[in-house]
Amino acid sequence: MTNTFSYNHLFAFTESVFRSMGCPEEDATLATEVLLSADLRGIDSHGVARLVGYVRLWEAGRINATPRVGIVHETPSTAVVDGDGGLGLVVAPKAMAIALEKARLVGTGWVSVKNSNHFGIAGYHAMKALAHDMIGMAMTNASPLVAPTHSLDRLLGTNPIAVAIPAGDQPDFVADFATTTAANGKLEIAQRKQKPVPEGWVQNADGSGSTDANAVKNGGALLPLGGDTGSHKGYCLGSIVDIFSAVLSGANYGPWVPPFVAFLQPPADPVGQGLGHFFGAMRIDAFRPAAEFKAHMDNWISTFRNARAVEGQQVLIPGDPEREMAAVRLLDGIPLLDPVVKDLETVGAKFGLTL
Amino acid sequence: MTNTFSYNHLFAFTESVFRSMGCPEEDATLATEVLLSADLRGIDSHGVARLVGYVRLWEAGRINATPRVGIVHETPSTAVVDGDGGLGLVVAPKAMAIALEKARLVGTGWVSVKNSNHFGIAGYHAMKALAHDMIGMAMTNASPLVAPTHSLDRLLGTNPIAVAIPAGDQPDFVADFATTTAANGKLEIAQRKQKPVPEGWVQNADGSGSTDANAVKNGGALLPLGGDTGSHKGYCLGSIVDIFSAVLSGANYGPWVPPFVAFLQPPADPVGQGLGHFFGAMRIDAFRPAAEFKAHMDNWISTFRNARAVEGQQVLIPGDPEREMAAVRLLDGIPLLDPVVKDLETVGAKFGLTL
Repeated sequence: MTNTFSYNHLFAFTESVFRSMGCPEEDATLATEVLLSADLRGIDSHGVARLVGYVRLWEAGRINATPRVGIVHETPSTAVVDGDGGLGLVVAPKAMAIALEKARLVGTGWVSVKNSNHFGIAGYHAMKALAHDMIGMAMTNASPLVAPTHSLDRLLGTNPIAVAIPAGDQPDFVADFATTTAANGKLEIAQRKQKPVPEGWVQNADGSGSTDANAVKNGGALLPLGGDTGSHKGYCLGSIVDIFSAVLSGANYGPWVPPFVAFLQPPADPVGQGLGHFFGAMRIDAFRPAAEFKAHMDNWISTFRNARAVEGQQVLIPGDPEREMAAVRLLDGIPLLDPVVKDLETVGAKFGLTL
Repeated sequence: MTNTFSYNHLFAFTESVFRSMGCPEEDATLATEVLLSADLRGIDSHGVARLVGYVRLWEAGRINATPRVGIVHETPSTAVVDGDGGLGLVVAPKAMAIALEKARLVGTGWVSVKNSNHFGIAGYHAMKALAHDMIGMAMTNASPLVAPTHSLDRLLGTNPIAVAIPAGDQPDFVADFATTTAANGKLEIAQRKQKPVPEGWVQNADGSGSTDANAVKNGGALLPLGGDTGSHKGYCLGSIVDIFSAVLSGANYGPWVPPFVAFLQPPADPVGQGLGHFFGAMRIDAFRPAAEFKAHMDNWISTFRNARAVEGQQVLIPGDPEREMAAVRLLDGIPLLDPVVKDLETVGAKFGLTL
């Protein structure tokens, strides 16, 4: 049995699962597009591997399949959006669309979201700005797995930031990264392979540095970006994401962010609603003519890409690896690990669907 | 001879130097306040230690003491400001004031600046938002000392980011950090003490990791935040700062950013004007009532500050060490190293001023 599936095959299956959960047709299509953008771009931890997680949260009554996503407060350049407990995969694109529309009208748009759930990869949402000659930004908080500098307690999520910037002839600049040294997905891979992880990724329960891939499971924590010598900077970044996404919107923040896994209960004393996101859009021509900007971006990109490199390496532009992976996987299909295939088959069976 | 000077003494001296350079009285006062905020907050590398550097750039005709700082393009929520070659210490506060005014009117304000110079500490500018119940942001590009991941060439500056967020009863949240593992100032301290630096700070000319504090002087480079295992994330951050500050505004970017030291010539083929900054301001009540937000910030801050800590340590909130230092130095004075005192005396002598 092959574990590689065509994009279209996985799309049809995933869409049917979301439809079976009761998502309206448009929402099911949208959620599928967002979720599979992770698989296409090689961020396997955030793609269909998580479909079972979303379904379990829905079964536990913690995801609303028919949310009424709406603006609760706004100014010309800002809004707070209530996701009504919906899939982040659906709430986030609607919030980003509001940011884009505000940017169209007054130059920039900034939207903080409460009462949402996991939104897939941040990069997908930031990239929605590109076709409009805008810069896009997306961030989200997440379940607490990360210890601030010197802390034994896990108070932050991996809280990713994505920024997408349009270029001209060159491919666009797309940065999308967790504010930890290593994303949780990389840790899971090391656990599966029973391999140690590099220093600076995790700490033990007593706060000592560790190379044990199971350290987080055993009461330890992921470390903020910067590892042993600069983790206070990653702690700053993760905190900013948490505050912009949740304290601005009225979502849960810090240790109150609800867990993604259905077998763990959300904190009994929430400080807000659901988890939070933050989106931004800036029209390029709110600053200078778009053609001029894009010509300079092309120069920026080619200068960096053509820098002298360490032997055997090349200087990459943010977004290069993911874009190349997407081109390959659209053509050759998306390889899935056996446990992921099994999970999908189990989910399918719930709804009478065949993978 | 004591090397400790009162804030007021250093203020009067520095203001006189800027006046002697030909700065209008208001600009001299402003530039002094910005510059000395670094000494107060313990960022000694960015304070009066740099005064001689600004004077030399002015002598070389690379700083305009009487700039006409103005908006060259704007929308309701954005502007591009031309610094007219002025001191960044003067240009930046004027640009930040424009961001604050735009935020007052439409919720947020975003200003990209070209044709400027070094602006002191980013945190000063971001903090200007706090009194208005706004979130403030400031970033700047800087002379190329940093190698992107896998690069042998130095293409980025230490490109700092500052974000200031108002709290209620708790002190405000103020993050201000270079997007490198270590700021250049820390490297200079290690050079002076002839001590090795931790791994992940610098690389040698051949791109190999190094603990030699002189590596950058000898053709090596500072490393982006993340060091050996995650420098691509710091590279992303530094790049975003460079693009927002300079490609958006029309300043020089990447390797074209002019050097701060007068003995090095700026690149002969500039791609823009001067160096660039980026400022942002967001009204809290463009999202939710400010009192509500600040009550949750107080909860956020006390939760993090009271986290269980590694033995002998405490979890700090971004801005804690600098705020405490400022309180001490306002009272006890600002200690200056001998070479800094000597530089200031030399600068004073130029203008018939006594330190």
